[in-house]
Formats: sequence, structure tokens, C-alpha cells
Amino acid sequence: MNKLTLVKVGGKIVEEPETLKQLLADFSKIEGFKVLVHGGGRSATAIAAKLGIESKMVNGRRITDEETLKVVTMVYGGLVNKQIVAGLQAIGINALGLTGADLNYMRSEKRPVKEVDYGYVGDVKEVNSDILSDLILKNVVPVLAPLTHDNAGNMLNTNADTIASEAAKALAKHFEVTLMYCFEKKGVLMNENDDESVINEITPALFEKYVAEGIIQGGMIPKLENAFEAINAGVKQVIITRADNIHTNLGTRIIKS
Amino acid sequence: MNKLTLVKVGGKIVEEPETLKQLLADFSKIEGFKVLVHGGGRSATAIAAKLGIESKMVNGRRITDEETLKVVTMVYGGLVNKQIVAGLQAIGINALGLTGADLNYMRSEKRPVKEVDYGYVGDVKEVNSDILSDLILKNVVPVLAPLTHDNAGNMLNTNADTIASEAAKALAKHFEVTLMYCFEKKGVLMNENDDESVINEITPALFEKYVAEGIIQGGMIPKLENAFEAINAGVKQVIITRADNIHTNLGTRIIKS
Repeated sequence: MNKLTLVKVGGKIVEEPETLKQLLADFSKIEGFKVLVHGGGRSATAIAAKLGIESKMVNGRRITDEETLKVVTMVYGGLVNKQIVAGLQAIGINALGLTGADLNYMRSEKRPVKEVDYGYVGDVKEVNSDILSDLILKNVVPVLAPLTHDNAGNMLNTNADTIASEAAKALAKHFEVTLMYCFEKKGVLMNENDDESVINEITPALFEKYVAEGIIQGGMIPKLENAFEAINAGVKQVIITRADNIHTNLGTRIIKS
Repeated sequence: MNKLTLVKVGGKIVEEPETLKQLLADFSKIEGFKVLVHGGGRSATAIAAKLGIESKMVNGRRITDEETLKVVTMVYGGLVNKQIVAGLQAIGINALGLTGADLNYMRSEKRPVKEVDYGYVGDVKEVNSDILSDLILKNVVPVLAPLTHDNAGNMLNTNADTIASEAAKALAKHFEVTLMYCFEKKGVLMNENDDESVINEITPALFEKYVAEGIIQGGMIPKLENAFEAINAGVKQVIITRADNIHTNLGTRIIKS
């Protein structure tokens, strides 16, 4: 099976011309087939504010009303995505920007209203990876915006981490997939006050141990649970690292055993 | 050779949900392979105004400064393009939204400053139609936004009519191409005061005759010159028609002889 690396970067790095340029240079050094998934929340918040639309966040997720959906469709699918695509083309990478609506590659359903009404937010239901896989084998590098569609004419806002893990799982049918999450630290830390105390490898057994010992806690727990879920669904490994290390072996590897 | 119809629609039709829905329904009825090219100027102007950016037009073209480039990248490449793509997917058409940067399918150069500095406006230099053609043969319907790139990392604003004729000419290597321009009238009129006086067919000889007689005048002259240029470059025919007639035989056919 061919190797494929799917890198997810948050908004901060891709929204500044200088950090974006460095990221794309590092990304270009990754060997084998590649996919890039990006956020864009800071730009969305900034442009929403200029348009007089208040950004409401609950549990770190954006409440997406009709006007906010237009903003994220513009900003994620247009501004941020095309700047990345143009930047990759400039360094000889044949990038193709996609939302879930394009090629119907990722279909979602509007999240049911429970305690919180997230609005036009989509939970992923179906990933069509065949055309995506064909394009990748032709050396096309998909650049995935955090947007899906409901196949009934509506775009939906979908978290970039979710796009990354769902795409990685679907592409695992075609490739040996490494899913790489960029993070502000160099990896999962043994000691949160020591940025150099990166844990090299986490297996399910080690994860349980570290959680029991309080070494892994807070927001890192669901992040790692998602990583194990991806691995159980066929992804070869998940790496949590800092953006400037994506082309190295540094970071925390999450593996089956 | 397989038949392909490339339809160009202006902004007005694609920017209102109701007219967009009708357009996409009519578009879906066109037999054979298809491409859609869209504008979006009204939305760009409206969003620019909300962001406090004044829209300056010279000779019907938008002066595209740095901030305006961001707006058109968002609006054409994100908002308008993805609403069309999602709308097509909803009626079973496997649409793929593209700017010139995506797949590097259309490269341009920033227009040299002469009497007017148009800013970040691109004149088309190269169209790579091979991957596009492969996708079309897999029943993918490209939806082309009026944006190109310079292959040096910059998006550039490019007129939708130009995108349509350049894409049509390049695709003529792979398909028997009909290039269809949507217009507010049912076609080129024999008498501008009679909307029903549509000229069915214009050849180069008839064009000369109608211009000499003053029947064809004003902005229709460069439009038809561009049509003949496309035909001389391999496009089979150009049709000028009203958006609600794209799935019929109505309108004005521009042919070689």
C-alpha cells in the first residue's frame, strides 16, 4: 500500500502569510502522498466582526447561524483555502481545494438540537474517497476546508479535526495513512511545564496508565481518544507534533500496540 | 469526440436562491458533459460595502486592490461557488468547484499597468485541461469561479467571460465544445426594441453585414468578436441565450460558416 500523510493544521498558522509560507515549505518535504486539512477560525471571527456578526462559541465550537454559515463558507472555502492552494502551486505542489460538497466527498447531517443548538453544523455521515484516492494517485494534493454539505443543497460547518480524522479513516482503505495533528507543543508532554518532555509513543495500555497517573488530562484525553478511534478504524498511526516538525520524526506517535 | 457544453452565467442569477435553483434545474437538463462558469459581482460589491471597501469599476471591470482581492477570493471562490456546488450535488450532479489555482488549471499574469491600474487582475496565459478533461469524463462537472492564479502564490481576479472562453478553447482539444453565454435577452436581437426578434444564426459574413447595417452595435460587437475568436480556436459553436433557455435550442448560434 502507498503511504499517505494527512496533516491537520489549525487556523493560526495558515492565516499569517509568513507562518503559512514556512508551513507549506515544511509540508512539501513530507515524502509520499499528502493531504492538508486546515482551520480558519481566527479569520472567520475577524471578518464576522467586521460584518457586524458576533461570534458565539460553546465548548470551543462556533454557533453557526445563517449569516455565520455564509462567513465560514467564504472564509474557509474561499479566502483561507485558496491562499493555501495558490501557495502550494507556487512551490510545485498540485493542490486542489475542496469542501465536502466538492465531488460530494464528505456528506454530513445538521447536528440535532439537544442542550445546545449549534445551528448549521454538520456531523459527518459519509465519506466518498474513491475519486479523492484517484486524484491523490495522480499526485494531486487535496486541501480540505472545514466545511461539509448535507447533499440537500446546504453547506455545513464541520470541525477541522473531525474532517481530518474522517478523511484519514476513509483514505485508509486506499493508503497506509499517517494522521498528523499540529499542536502548539512539540507533542504530548510528560510534564506540562517542560516543553521538551515529549512522550515518544503512546499505546492504548500506556494511555490508560498515563490517564490514571494524571499525566494525560483535560482536553488531551478526547484528542487521544479520537486518535485511537482513527487507528481502530484502519489509520496506521497518529502523530501529534508542532507545525514546524511535520517533516521530521519528532512528536508523539499514537499506535495500536 | 464527446460533446461538452460550457455555460457561463452572470452573477445576478446565481446570487438569488430562487433563480439559482431554477438555473441549476435547467442546467441539469443539458445532455452530455457539462461545465458551469459563474460570476458573483453583486455579492462581492455588497460584501465589500459591508466591510467598508468601496468598489471601483472602470470599463465594467473591478479595480482589484489587495483588500478587494480578499473579498473576491472569499465571495467568488467560497460563498457563490460553494452554494452552486452544493446545489448541484443536491440534484445529483457531481460538481467540483475550482479556481484557476486548483489543479493549476488556469494560470494568469497580473495585468500590466497602462492607462488604468486594474490591480490584482489576471490575464490568462495557460490552461491545463488534461486533469479537467479526465474528471469530466468521470462525470464530474467543474464549476469555475472567476479567479485565476499567477503560479507565484497570488490569486488574481479574472472576468468570468474570459474564464469561459479560455476554458472552452482548451477543452476543445478533448471535446466538441458548445460555449453558451447567458444574457438578459433571448439572444442577439435584429431589433433591440423587440425581444422576440432573435437572430438564429450568425456567421462571420452575417456578422460583418449586421455590423455594417448597424443592427449589431455597442457592447455586442466585442462579445461576438470573442465568440468568433473561440470558434477559430476550435470551439464548435457559441450560443448566446437567456438563462432559462439553456436546456433548449433557443438563442443565437455563432458558427464558423
